[in-house]
Amino acid sequence: LRTALIGYGNVAKAFARLLFDKRSVYPFRIVGIHQRRGTAYDDHGLGLEPQFGEPAGSLNEFLERAQPDVVIELTNLNPDSGQPAISHIRAAFARGIHVITANKGPIAHAYAALCREARRAQVEFRFESTVMDGAPVFNQFRNNLPGVNVFGFTGVLNSTSKIVVAAMQRGLTMEDGIREAQAIGIAEADAFYDIDGWDSAAKTAALANVLMDAGTTPQQVMRSGLRDLTTEQAVEYARAGQSILLVSRAMRSEDGSLKLQVRPEVVPQTDLLATVAGSSNLLLFHTGLMGNYRHGFYSPGSGANSLRNIQRSGRYC
Amino acid sequence: LRTALIGYGNVAKAFARLLFDKRSVYPFRIVGIHQRRGTAYDDHGLGLEPQFGEPAGSLNEFLERAQPDVVIELTNLNPDSGQPAISHIRAAFARGIHVITANKGPIAHAYAALCREARRAQVEFRFESTVMDGAPVFNQFRNNLPGVNVFGFTGVLNSTSKIVVAAMQRGLTMEDGIREAQAIGIAEADAFYDIDGWDSAAKTAALANVLMDAGTTPQQVMRSGLRDLTTEQAVEYARAGQSILLVSRAMRSEDGSLKLQVRPEVVPQTDLLATVAGSSNLLLFHTGLMGNYRHGFYSPGSGANSLRNIQRSGRYC
Repeated sequence: LRTALIGYGNVAKAFARLLFDKRSVYPFRIVGIHQRRGTAYDDHGLGLEPQFGEPAGSLNEFLERAQPDVVIELTNLNPDSGQPAISHIRAAFARGIHVITANKGPIAHAYAALCREARRAQVEFRFESTVMDGAPVFNQFRNNLPGVNVFGFTGVLNSTSKIVVAAMQRGLTMEDGIREAQAIGIAEADAFYDIDGWDSAAKTAALANVLMDAGTTPQQVMRSGLRDLTTEQAVEYARAGQSILLVSRAMRSEDGSLKLQVRPEVVPQTDLLATVAGSSNLLLFHTGLMGNYRHGFYSPGSGANSLRNIQRSGRYC
Repeated sequence: LRTALIGYGNVAKAFARLLFDKRSVYPFRIVGIHQRRGTAYDDHGLGLEPQFGEPAGSLNEFLERAQPDVVIELTNLNPDSGQPAISHIRAAFARGIHVITANKGPIAHAYAALCREARRAQVEFRFESTVMDGAPVFNQFRNNLPGVNVFGFTGVLNSTSKIVVAAMQRGLTMEDGIREAQAIGIAEADAFYDIDGWDSAAKTAALANVLMDAGTTPQQVMRSGLRDLTTEQAVEYARAGQSILLVSRAMRSEDGSLKLQVRPEVVPQTDLLATVAGSSNLLLFHTGLMGNYRHGFYSPGSGANSLRNIQRSGRYC
């Protein structure tokens, strides 16, 4: 399959390496990579050190020359809008190209519309790695739990805030904690995107859009963050055997309305939500037929695990 | 689909009720039920209160008269042998009938052979609910993680022992704890099957057979149980903030050999393994591509959740 990458950050580089290592097993050949700083093409497949020339004048110019069968969209997210990922995906659909994205923005902001467009173009649209890195969340419901309705979920979905709070509970400042999260490579460029709960809100919206037909956006999630937490408070909670977590919650009420929320919650250190160590995430679903169902993933040290799941991305459209 | 049930205990009854409630959605019609105390037939579909006549003279007589397309095997397990479930499954395969079982015995004792026989007969053999009740463990790997090798796993897979130990940590006797587990309907007929680790060993063998090609049996799992635990010890651990758990472990060594083990482990109450409350189970996989991957399921109060997953049973053959 002729494969094109849009964006070439850490995840894209690791993914390209993985595809290269597994090229005898999986039929993907990277024929083009487009990033702001330059564009690379090779019909025979780009190697591990692609040579970038001048950037293509436009995404359409890139797609026209690369002629991919599938586009893998891995650009940096603008959390307020889901752009430019949404435009990239639409440009690919318009040319009849399948799209896989690891970007939660398009799913959090425009899931239903993008699904309709993919169906109309008769192409696949996959996005499993947008939430919980490599853990198959969307596919678990789609492939394995077809009779199961999701009434709600509870998740600890942001790694950076966990690292920061853990540092503060040891007596360090928020800034120390942010540096720690950046040092292990998991903090987003702007750590307050995590601290203020925007990352969690985007994941909450994405999960609700796909699994609960929410038709929502991150801005519509009731959101409060951790910015006002002080080291004194954090240490105090630690002394009392408690953790502070940024918890995502979705609840469908009896009347059918859907409540989506991200907020700090204080729980005992023995609570399941609190025991998923380090940068790991945890997600608990409230379902009809299955009772409460837990879905957790331990990602030691890096969101780079998301690349693991790009290939088997969720297919919900 | 003409559906026959072999065995008619709590899980089978709940499953029959579910199929009846969902008969407009799923095309299953129960045309026969065979249990030791009697056999029932109805070509138009048995209702919620089947009338049992004399038991069929043999399983073959039952299958000959019921003419099912699919057999659902739900008899009581003989943990030492996996019988009579294995014979029932073979009898169905020999007649070209698909089989779904919620019985871990056949998977723990004879998985590879049964798979070969199913393939030869060109029928399906499914068994998702044999481990972790309704949580799709086998399907998660089969459907959603195809490139992922399982190198090992760590699980807390037995609910009865958890309830019993929790009671003992509150100062009660083992007998009190067993009565508690029986009162909430989760203890096996012989609670020492759970306490001595046989249930965990069977689940360990089943997981290893399916996900790690172990070709093993419960007897080959290194096993020690909780029978010698005293209330004094349990209370002492509780005072020290520790839990005692029957932990299942599988580890593939560098030389390729596979070590399977069930034994009591003492862990802090803040350990993830210890925080899955009540009768819930937890399973953590050690994989190549995915790092450590957690798979948990919260089954409030009863193994009857296993019925939820009978229909979407694992398909590994």
